[in-house]
Amino acid sequence: MSASRKTDRPKARLAKGFRDVGPQEIRGLKRMLRTIEEVYESYGFEPVEQPFIEYTDALGKFLPDQDRPNEGVFSFQDDDDQWLSLRYDLTAPLARYVAENQQSLPMPYRSYRQGWVFRNEKPGPGRFRQFMQFDADTVGTPSPAADAEVCMMAADTLERLGIARGRYVMKVNNRKLLNGFQEKFDIPFTTQVTWLRAIDKLDRLGKSGVADLLGPGRNDESGDFTKGAGLTDEQIEASLAFATSASLDRRLIAGSSTGEEGLREIETIMELCRSAGYGEERIRYDSSVVRGLEYYTGPVFEAELLIETTDQENRPVRFGSVGGGGRYDDLVARFTGQAVPATGFSLGVSRLYSALKLAGKAEESTVEAPVIVLVLDRDRLGDYQRITTTLREAGIRAEMYLGTSGIRAQMKYADRRGSPLAVIQGTDEKARGEVQLKDLGLGAELAKNIESRAEYKEARLAQFSVPEHKLVDAVRQALHRR
Amino acid sequence: MSASRKTDRPKARLAKGFRDVGPQEIRGLKRMLRTIEEVYESYGFEPVEQPFIEYTDALGKFLPDQDRPNEGVFSFQDDDDQWLSLRYDLTAPLARYVAENQQSLPMPYRSYRQGWVFRNEKPGPGRFRQFMQFDADTVGTPSPAADAEVCMMAADTLERLGIARGRYVMKVNNRKLLNGFQEKFDIPFTTQVTWLRAIDKLDRLGKSGVADLLGPGRNDESGDFTKGAGLTDEQIEASLAFATSASLDRRLIAGSSTGEEGLREIETIMELCRSAGYGEERIRYDSSVVRGLEYYTGPVFEAELLIETTDQENRPVRFGSVGGGGRYDDLVARFTGQAVPATGFSLGVSRLYSALKLAGKAEESTVEAPVIVLVLDRDRLGDYQRITTTLREAGIRAEMYLGTSGIRAQMKYADRRGSPLAVIQGTDEKARGEVQLKDLGLGAELAKNIESRAEYKEARLAQFSVPEHKLVDAVRQALHRR
Repeated sequence: MSASRKTDRPKARLAKGFRDVGPQEIRGLKRMLRTIEEVYESYGFEPVEQPFIEYTDALGKFLPDQDRPNEGVFSFQDDDDQWLSLRYDLTAPLARYVAENQQSLPMPYRSYRQGWVFRNEKPGPGRFRQFMQFDADTVGTPSPAADAEVCMMAADTLERLGIARGRYVMKVNNRKLLNGFQEKFDIPFTTQVTWLRAIDKLDRLGKSGVADLLGPGRNDESGDFTKGAGLTDEQIEASLAFATSASLDRRLIAGSSTGEEGLREIETIMELCRSAGYGEERIRYDSSVVRGLEYYTGPVFEAELLIETTDQENRPVRFGSVGGGGRYDDLVARFTGQAVPATGFSLGVSRLYSALKLAGKAEESTVEAPVIVLVLDRDRLGDYQRITTTLREAGIRAEMYLGTSGIRAQMKYADRRGSPLAVIQGTDEKARGEVQLKDLGLGAELAKNIESRAEYKEARLAQFSVPEHKLVDAVRQALHRR
Repeated sequence: MSASRKTDRPKARLAKGFRDVGPQEIRGLKRMLRTIEEVYESYGFEPVEQPFIEYTDALGKFLPDQDRPNEGVFSFQDDDDQWLSLRYDLTAPLARYVAENQQSLPMPYRSYRQGWVFRNEKPGPGRFRQFMQFDADTVGTPSPAADAEVCMMAADTLERLGIARGRYVMKVNNRKLLNGFQEKFDIPFTTQVTWLRAIDKLDRLGKSGVADLLGPGRNDESGDFTKGAGLTDEQIEASLAFATSASLDRRLIAGSSTGEEGLREIETIMELCRSAGYGEERIRYDSSVVRGLEYYTGPVFEAELLIETTDQENRPVRFGSVGGGGRYDDLVARFTGQAVPATGFSLGVSRLYSALKLAGKAEESTVEAPVIVLVLDRDRLGDYQRITTTLREAGIRAEMYLGTSGIRAQMKYADRRGSPLAVIQGTDEKARGEVQLKDLGLGAELAKNIESRAEYKEARLAQFSVPEHKLVDAVRQALHRR
């Protein structure tokens, strides 16, 4: 076997940009996902799942900042030479699903799904190539009521997860407003995408950085040059005014029918939210929301957390976006040629979980570490196995030590597992029909404050014998006392 | 946009060998996975997750029946030319994880994980290229107690899922017994893998098919020829006797130290299971269990369901395997060069779910379809939205109709959703401060048996008015009555 020849050995290493997930995070995430699910179910959304792999042409190319073909997506060829890709989001596969199953779905079709997506991008700190999204979408209606509903649902979700009202905001904008502005200020068609992406970077680059991107171009810290949109000073000034104003300056879109339609949609959304009791402290217009994905056609949303954290240089900053979405009226029509308007919202699960941890709202694990049954005599494994099974059958999480080491190593193992209690039965105890219980938590607790020999003796009470037939009761009591 | 030019349109189709999953199955699977988790947790196993993508060399090549390089696995090259692969099982990534994190893990390390795996194989009926596994592994101990524990845990899991005792069996064998037999009967080293794979096909091909594979070779139905192992008649006869005997004929391995070690391990496993109350009706030796994966080194297991189903030709057959596993002592050593013995078990989630459905043990969805608030006047969307929100805030699953169609289409939508109740408020009701509730289930139920005009009038009671401020109570009562 190759293991014996050093040169043949592979190195045990995670692939670049991927990570393992441990028990605390798995359990915490699971609880968080369950809460999100409950909210989405209460809104009448139904679960559905698409596979991880789709035909490349069915997914399309809508990722932000991907100028080269296939960049951003993991792709490979099938036996029959067709190109396959790993999904890069949960929206493109849903569009394929709806286009394929339109006849059998109730319309409008509300659905949710949660899962890993993959981006073939340069990984960085906290930036992975596999991450989880939780999406909800309403397909088959152009009604702004569907957009409003998605926003209210996102707000409800954040509150149910423990983010207090006032510490988050659902920001709403409309691509039609942006298009209206572009129309009115003669932003050339060829630079419209560049314009959107530049505006989308306001948060990160500030006004002057974005002004460079809209004008002559920009050198970033690493010295890389990004080509600019080449707009005039007047266009740049208006763009920045438009994108940074707290409330909408109607003059900046007046006369553009697209812009005015966008405005009406925003107003309807806000009115519906107000009717249902969701005021501006929860859901409001924000001119800076653009969303990078290319498939949006109308209202766009972003869930922003206002809680404070620190950036890489340890400066206080707002936590920022934990999810976003918008209306994508053309994504199903890509397949069918027939309009199937749709809107949706996607939560960044890992980011949201980080936020909850930061806010002290990611519950700690409620799973207690197991009771450990120690192995004193290896030829009495059957006895220890029976003790372990008895505990399990009584609903007590328990394990028999499975290694081959001695008692000291076994105690160290129990400690490493955070076990509350060890069960011990040597030959003497066996002869007397007894087992010893060692309260590991209590022992450790007492040991911290022990100063005299008398105290030490007392501390030993953390270990005591019980008749074997009273094992379950005694273990229950010991666990309860903690 | 390309949607308008027919020739550019991609076809909305699932990639070959993949499938979408609907609400019933998602909810049913979720409950099943939760039960498995509870059992594994009770045994002290902790969750851990590895990513979907690993370096190809880190996963290794251990799939059965994959003779060409890269066959069976989806692979692609990274920017830096390193090869990446989608995981084909959950064991190979775990081995990488343990080799990488050995110092920080408690040893022996018990863990479980659940997730999708991918095989680049020819899809067939019920045979997909993405499927879910649920694995539990104990790493860091050579003790047969770890193998016994895994078998008991699998048995407990099946029972907790509703498979009655006697309707399943955990079958145990040992690769060392098989190796011992090979030693004793001078099966040449070069044909040992061929021998294992042939024996593994006993179920499917029967004795004569396997005899062909062990001897001159075999033509299958499609006319493809599989090269045989070229064994002598005596070797073939002994092989078949060995692999089909109900209890172990010790003479067939006597004198081989490997075989005798395998025998001792099996005996220890059985003894530990008996000690804990797991008799031969649950866990027993079975000579035919081989397991196709190449990395097994000792005990191998298979969970077989004895419930009846039918094959493709509608003949009654046993349901068969829903999972398997075994000891893989060299998989971590592949990386580190140091022995890290390990054993584990993997459930085939989709197959197990099919079995539960067949046995009537896959619970039906407990999620009730939502109450539908109909939209009679489009300019009163705010009112309908408020009604919907009021219901939701009272914990009632509810949705407002979001489409643009008239009442008839809305009722059809409600019917398609399986909704129990519609809430209706026209201008008249609004003026009177009332809402109407229409009991959709009851209406449909009554309609079936209506024969006279009087009865018809009575049936109309399925629709009634209530004051708006009593909406929540009335809806609760109506739902409760069903």
